[in-house]
Formats: sequence, structure tokens, C-alpha cells
Amino acid sequence: MQVVLRPIGFVRSPYKSMSDAPRQGRYSDRISEIVIYGEFKDGLDGLENCRYAIVLYWMDRASREKLKVVPPGEKKERGVFSTRSPSRPNPVGLCVVEILEIRENILVVRWLDALNNSPVLDIKKYSPEIDCIPQQR
Amino acid sequence: MQVVLRPIGFVRSPYKSMSDAPRQGRYSDRISEIVIYGEFKDGLDGLENCRYAIVLYWMDRASREKLKVVPPGEKKERGVFSTRSPSRPNPVGLCVVEILEIRENILVVRWLDALNNSPVLDIKKYSPEIDCIPQQR
Repeated sequence: MQVVLRPIGFVRSPYKSMSDAPRQGRYSDRISEIVIYGEFKDGLDGLENCRYAIVLYWMDRASREKLKVVPPGEKKERGVFSTRSPSRPNPVGLCVVEILEIRENILVVRWLDALNNSPVLDIKKYSPEIDCIPQQR
Repeated sequence: MQVVLRPIGFVRSPYKSMSDAPRQGRYSDRISEIVIYGEFKDGLDGLENCRYAIVLYWMDRASREKLKVVPPGEKKERGVFSTRSPSRPNPVGLCVVEILEIRENILVVRWLDALNNSPVLDIKKYSPEIDCIPQQR
């Protein structure tokens, strides 16, 4: 069985290659843009009232073959599902971003770590009630 | 351009149809199982040390045509990207789950709202540092 996704847009970011990108978007204040294709623009309605959003994007330059990696700062290999490595069978990236501005079909955001030109798959309202575990902070 | 994903497993859940499912998994304590296919089992290594995880799954019974929906408890239509509606061009579900037990290739979890037999696309370590906005709690 295959799941076929159609990008809803793409990323314009200062990160041209993996070596440019921060380990996690959250650790950088650099600004990226998410360009949404015209046919999906109506889906953005209401996002002007959301300060934060979850962005799912396609890490098109990530390896899909690795099931184990050595996470940064660690010495032992671990399964990719216990990490945030871009290497994974379905390299879908996930970032909570801050929306700084919306200009027509373009979202200006920070905390996104996607490489330049990465396809965007989905945007969801960020909802701390369901996305966070209060005791864990 | 198309993005082709290959499910890494599937969900066994008490929710047989949309009307069974809670509005968000977080609002229910019912238990689900995630069955990971043998070929991806090595990717689970280390997850036994994670109490929480983010699960991405495929909402195979959701509409992909709608760009606007009326969210529960609201009266006006909004763009799907400003909501958590299952209806969206690429219906990838996202739940933060609590891992209660791991038995070989099966994860026993709560807070997952996936319907029974939903394909699972990815599992990521939950990391409050990057997945939460502290000021927003």
C-alpha cells in the first residue's frame, strides 16, 4: 500500500544544504517563508488569528534507508523512531513555528528548519492543550 | 510532484468509524495499539526510554477535497490549515501519545485518536523543548 501526498506549497529558507540548517529550527531565529500554491490558499483563512502553527514538510534530501542513527551528542546508535533525525522511512519534518506575517499566500515564520525548496505537506493550528504534556515542562 | 509514503505499520483501535472517535485523542483514556511491520522494527530501539511520542498516521477515511470547515463549537467556516480537522488536502493525523508498554513490534498507547486500521507513517520522540511554547501554557 502506498500513500500519495500532494505538496500544498514549498519553503523559501536561508538553509541551502543540510550543513546550513540548525539542529532544530527552534534553536534559531532565522526567518523562512512558506509559499502556498494558489489552489490551496482558501485553507489559510483564519490562520491570521493563530500565532503559532505546526508545519509538516517533506525532507526530500533525507535518507529513507536508515533505521538506526547516532543522535547528536550521543555515542550509541538508536532507532530513528526514538529520535528527531531527518533519516527515517518517511522523512516528514515537523516544526512548531511562530507566524510573523501573512502576505496573501505567503507565511513568514521563524523556527522552521526546512531546507530551501522543501515541499510543504500540511499546516495545523498549534494547540497546547493537545500538543503538550504540562507535567513535562 | 508527488510524495510517496510507505506505511511503517497500522493502528488497532477501539474506534471503528468517525462517530466512535473522540474529538481529539487527548480527551480520552482509551488504549490503542500500534503494530509496526517487521522490516521497520529496528527503528523502535530506544523508544523504551521515551514515555511520550509523536505519532503521524494516515487518516484514510478523511475528505481531501475540503479547504474550509466549521470547527466543533463554532459557527463560521475557517480554512482547514487553521484547524485540526481531519479534512485537509493531505490528511496526516498527529497525536502526542503516552507509551504504556512495548511488546516486541507493538506499542500500547493512549491519546491516539486514529480509527482502527489506519496506516502509521512515522513515530518521533516527543521533545517539550521544541514541541511546546512555554509561554502558551
